[in-house]
Amino acid sequence: MHVRLRNPDREIDVEGPRRVRDLLTELGIDPDTVLVIRDKTLLTREEPLEEGDGVEIRPVISGGSGGRPGMRCRRCREPAVIELRRHNAAFCGPCFTRYAKEQVRRAIHDHRMLEPGDRVMVAVSGGKDSLALWDMLLELGFDATGMYLGLGIGEYSNASGQLVAAFARERDVPLVHVDLQEAYGYDIPTAGREGSRSTCSVCGLSKRYVFNRVALEHGYDVVATGHNLDDEAATLLGNTLRWQTEYIARQFPTLAGREGLVKKVKPLYRLSEKETAAYAFLRGIDYVVEECPLVEGNTQLKYKGAMNLLESSSPGTKASFLFGYLDRAAPLFQAEDPAELNPCSQCGQPTTGRFCAFCRARAQVLGERLAPPETGSDPHQTVRELSPEAMPVELYEPSGDRAGG
Amino acid sequence: MHVRLRNPDREIDVEGPRRVRDLLTELGIDPDTVLVIRDKTLLTREEPLEEGDGVEIRPVISGGSGGRPGMRCRRCREPAVIELRRHNAAFCGPCFTRYAKEQVRRAIHDHRMLEPGDRVMVAVSGGKDSLALWDMLLELGFDATGMYLGLGIGEYSNASGQLVAAFARERDVPLVHVDLQEAYGYDIPTAGREGSRSTCSVCGLSKRYVFNRVALEHGYDVVATGHNLDDEAATLLGNTLRWQTEYIARQFPTLAGREGLVKKVKPLYRLSEKETAAYAFLRGIDYVVEECPLVEGNTQLKYKGAMNLLESSSPGTKASFLFGYLDRAAPLFQAEDPAELNPCSQCGQPTTGRFCAFCRARAQVLGERLAPPETGSDPHQTVRELSPEAMPVELYEPSGDRAGG
Repeated sequence: MHVRLRNPDREIDVEGPRRVRDLLTELGIDPDTVLVIRDKTLLTREEPLEEGDGVEIRPVISGGSGGRPGMRCRRCREPAVIELRRHNAAFCGPCFTRYAKEQVRRAIHDHRMLEPGDRVMVAVSGGKDSLALWDMLLELGFDATGMYLGLGIGEYSNASGQLVAAFARERDVPLVHVDLQEAYGYDIPTAGREGSRSTCSVCGLSKRYVFNRVALEHGYDVVATGHNLDDEAATLLGNTLRWQTEYIARQFPTLAGREGLVKKVKPLYRLSEKETAAYAFLRGIDYVVEECPLVEGNTQLKYKGAMNLLESSSPGTKASFLFGYLDRAAPLFQAEDPAELNPCSQCGQPTTGRFCAFCRARAQVLGERLAPPETGSDPHQTVRELSPEAMPVELYEPSGDRAGG
Repeated sequence: MHVRLRNPDREIDVEGPRRVRDLLTELGIDPDTVLVIRDKTLLTREEPLEEGDGVEIRPVISGGSGGRPGMRCRRCREPAVIELRRHNAAFCGPCFTRYAKEQVRRAIHDHRMLEPGDRVMVAVSGGKDSLALWDMLLELGFDATGMYLGLGIGEYSNASGQLVAAFARERDVPLVHVDLQEAYGYDIPTAGREGSRSTCSVCGLSKRYVFNRVALEHGYDVVATGHNLDDEAATLLGNTLRWQTEYIARQFPTLAGREGLVKKVKPLYRLSEKETAAYAFLRGIDYVVEECPLVEGNTQLKYKGAMNLLESSSPGTKASFLFGYLDRAAPLFQAEDPAELNPCSQCGQPTTGRFCAFCRARAQVLGERLAPPETGSDPHQTVRELSPEAMPVELYEPSGDRAGG
């Protein structure tokens, strides 16, 4: 059989017939960390594979597992395609997507994330989480516009942008596109090399700034991001290991808006990385399977590794850590009032100092002096808000070498 | 050369000559997790080994590492025998023991653990931590009596008891010996099988109860335990992952005494597991290298594994987690008043309910009913306080098959 391994991509031929679990054992792959796909169908670990089969093994980074042999859907008793160890449950495809949407509906309700009629901006990267989120919000009937920020990370950014544009075109929904280089004069690889911040740090700062500013200036009520349970648990672990009490206090699925800061919500915080990957797959969403090539050494990944180690021996560790914090411990950290904000002297966006962190980082990367902008030199002037029809043609053109899914 | 691997013990012959690091690579051993010993001397990773050498590889469970080639002692510039990555420092043997004692002196001072003239009871298991602690307290001039609790865990307990008795006899210091079976009618393997608690849980409960009761009834001012930095960081991680705020609030190096509860202190909390192992070795203390055979699946070990994963990529993670909690976060957890205590209806020791957790667990293990004791049936009557001369002979008899060190 022909096996396509993703991230990094490579292809091998393996003799058949054999079962999925035996194939994974031979390849030294933990079944809890991948989706195994044949003919656009998720396979359980006991599924037999034949000599002529073509199989894709797609990592999801984090835990979970395929269904066990003979496992049945908890809801409808059809054969299961996914097992959720922390819930001690398994689901067939349709019941799983229903479960996933239910988790998002509950997150939105419990944390008062969205009201009917809100104009929602979804920060989309082209990865599984953000596209799954956009799909769910549309399914749940929200007015959700995607916003894609071009980071300039070579082929990775090109592929991401094309997938985001294809998603928007297929569903005929609006997409806002900002290119960091065009709008602000730098790209992320350059910023990582030239500035004093790490690549991941300046990338996160740039995203937070641009998403907030574009949402504010274009009249969106709320920005939704695709942070999932694994992301949030890893961030909470990192902040707790350093007892950064101010950061811990702010880690909520909903952050209310303030003057100059748009409301921010994380509707996927109840779903694991494996669950968002399975949702995206089962909904036929074509997402970027590759990891960002600049992510090596990222401390967030180390915290995810430690959480995965604990989750594998005690399923539910991540959820009880994050949900336990939200339910019981968060009030202990919220004594302090938030800092006063004033407009940045360069760009006018809210900050606690004279210049905001974004303008300081950008000036450092570009070797410019920080000073109030002259008339007409607002670095934000080149944002383009486009309907799918008006998107640059190259973003829509199907790429011949792109993954089939 | 002849290589003796410990815990579990096995012996192999390997061709020489080669360097320590090459030997460890061939055996698939992380140099950060072991002491390598030849002729009672710690070896650095670059040390050459000859064909006729006899070498012991002794695990310490946690991180740290041997000195790098050419590394010099930070204090006296002699060749280093141990490198402390989180301090970015290395020490020779004498300066390391001085450093270790200084850390303990600082712990005792900062947390007001002991006053001159205090009668200190040291809970000793025969392992590296508790014997290193006892040695340090004696070196620092404290009146420190050992207390050994016989847990009845077969050969492991026998070996531990013999090492503790040998330590006491060599230094001519008093040792209190309580046998759980004699004094309370059960041993730990039985309790783990018969009761509803896990083996590690009932063992911890038994130790806390007996140490406290014996210290109170025999007039000790304080109980000192050998909990090290790795122990405390792992416990804090476990409690934080579940946000058990009451447990988090109580996790201090010093717990003040209350009615019926003797003061408890952890003078080793600033030293890692590797550091207490190196101290014990450099001081010539013969300790039990074997792990308790009942420890498998212990959740504390899982938390240690996760902490070690993080420590290996960021040395200092454990220390900043524990010390950051003590310095900055602990006050957030201490709003609640401690629960009221009353005497247990069975044994009279302090508890929040009618019967204390120890009496409930013991009754369950023995299949007895919980009721106030009849006259003369106090289960605590068989404690023996003995001078080294009066200890049972078998505890002193050198064992021919015991490790040389």
